[in-house]
Amino acid sequence: MTTRIELYTAATPNGHKASVTLEELGLDYTTHPVNLMEGEQKQSDFLAMTPNGRIPVIVDREADDFVVFESGAIMIYLAEKTGKLLPQDPKGRSQVIQWLMFQMGGVGPMMGQANVFFRYFPEKIQPAIDRYQNETYRLLSVLNSHLEKNEFLTDEFSIADIANWCWARTSSWSGVEVDDLPHLQRWIDQIQARPACAKGVEVPPRADAETVVNSGKSIITR
Amino acid sequence: MTTRIELYTAATPNGHKASVTLEELGLDYTTHPVNLMEGEQKQSDFLAMTPNGRIPVIVDREADDFVVFESGAIMIYLAEKTGKLLPQDPKGRSQVIQWLMFQMGGVGPMMGQANVFFRYFPEKIQPAIDRYQNETYRLLSVLNSHLEKNEFLTDEFSIADIANWCWARTSSWSGVEVDDLPHLQRWIDQIQARPACAKGVEVPPRADAETVVNSGKSIITR
Repeated sequence: MTTRIELYTAATPNGHKASVTLEELGLDYTTHPVNLMEGEQKQSDFLAMTPNGRIPVIVDREADDFVVFESGAIMIYLAEKTGKLLPQDPKGRSQVIQWLMFQMGGVGPMMGQANVFFRYFPEKIQPAIDRYQNETYRLLSVLNSHLEKNEFLTDEFSIADIANWCWARTSSWSGVEVDDLPHLQRWIDQIQARPACAKGVEVPPRADAETVVNSGKSIITR
Repeated sequence: MTTRIELYTAATPNGHKASVTLEELGLDYTTHPVNLMEGEQKQSDFLAMTPNGRIPVIVDREADDFVVFESGAIMIYLAEKTGKLLPQDPKGRSQVIQWLMFQMGGVGPMMGQANVFFRYFPEKIQPAIDRYQNETYRLLSVLNSHLEKNEFLTDEFSIADIANWCWARTSSWSGVEVDDLPHLQRWIDQIQARPACAKGVEVPPRADAETVVNSGKSIITR
């Protein structure tokens, strides 16, 4: 069988947004792990696909090798390609896009900055750590309040749930405790119990990624 | 004539994404300035519309007072409502959404953080200022390289141009010099020359905003 989607990704929340969506949609895809530690996302063959040099990126073999970058755009593209995980009616569709944008412009960037200052930055700058951990908690509290009255972020499980879940499930990595956000926790557990979601967040396997590091071989085959 | 769209906004790049889109689409709308300094975006009447307490928000009177929050979601909603500024074909449409997401997840949050640490933060934390100014410059360089070969970000002027332009035009406010990015500058000037864009970034008028501050009256009328 011909592979329909090539996925260039890494084991990060943004990467998982793409792989979980592919799993939920049941699409045939091949994973190409991109070694971020080795800077493969800044190599010329990767930049030829995506000028921003960030994962994930997909190539749709069924659409003349059409390239899609930006995780949120990949989710919308795949949902529209299959007619799933994003309603057709204007209001339902907009509600999904609103909560997807909430993740793209809020949860993702703020948790990302929390991770940078809490885990990676060469200096310990407590005011910056506090700023981003507090903002992460505030955003997750917004989700918690909404999920108190709703099973999912919109009427049905959608790419908005996937996008926010891929980040929210990693809050402890950002050093943010969410024990007092029970509705968020209920929703996180509920999505984790979906086989496709559980499988998607294991893509790419971390062991494979290490193999690539050890082999020193570029896995960007395009 | 009945007003079709109620716009709750402030004179910020995210607010301008909504007002410029409304102007470009020629839609009838009423502006309700939200006084961010007075914290009106965190008042209960505003939070009833948008749980995240951020501007802009629109209410579509033609669609049973449907509320849309998140600037990127507002742009997509209005473009789809009118069939303009966002192509119908899957590839053209996805390219616009990709560059819109580039602004939502990259340019907007990173310039926003540059502004915070460069202008507003109580302490001067040079490593944080440098981090966000450098990332802003890098992202604007990605736009510059793309605009060297393209008149607009995609085949035709779209909501992707509006979204990135509303932020890129304010780079000096973030303390980021772009004199050596001529293609970005050409594109900024070209969009500024569009009457609807020039008008949209004057919404709400700053003088009006001051009047509201002085009157002490809530302008959230909903």
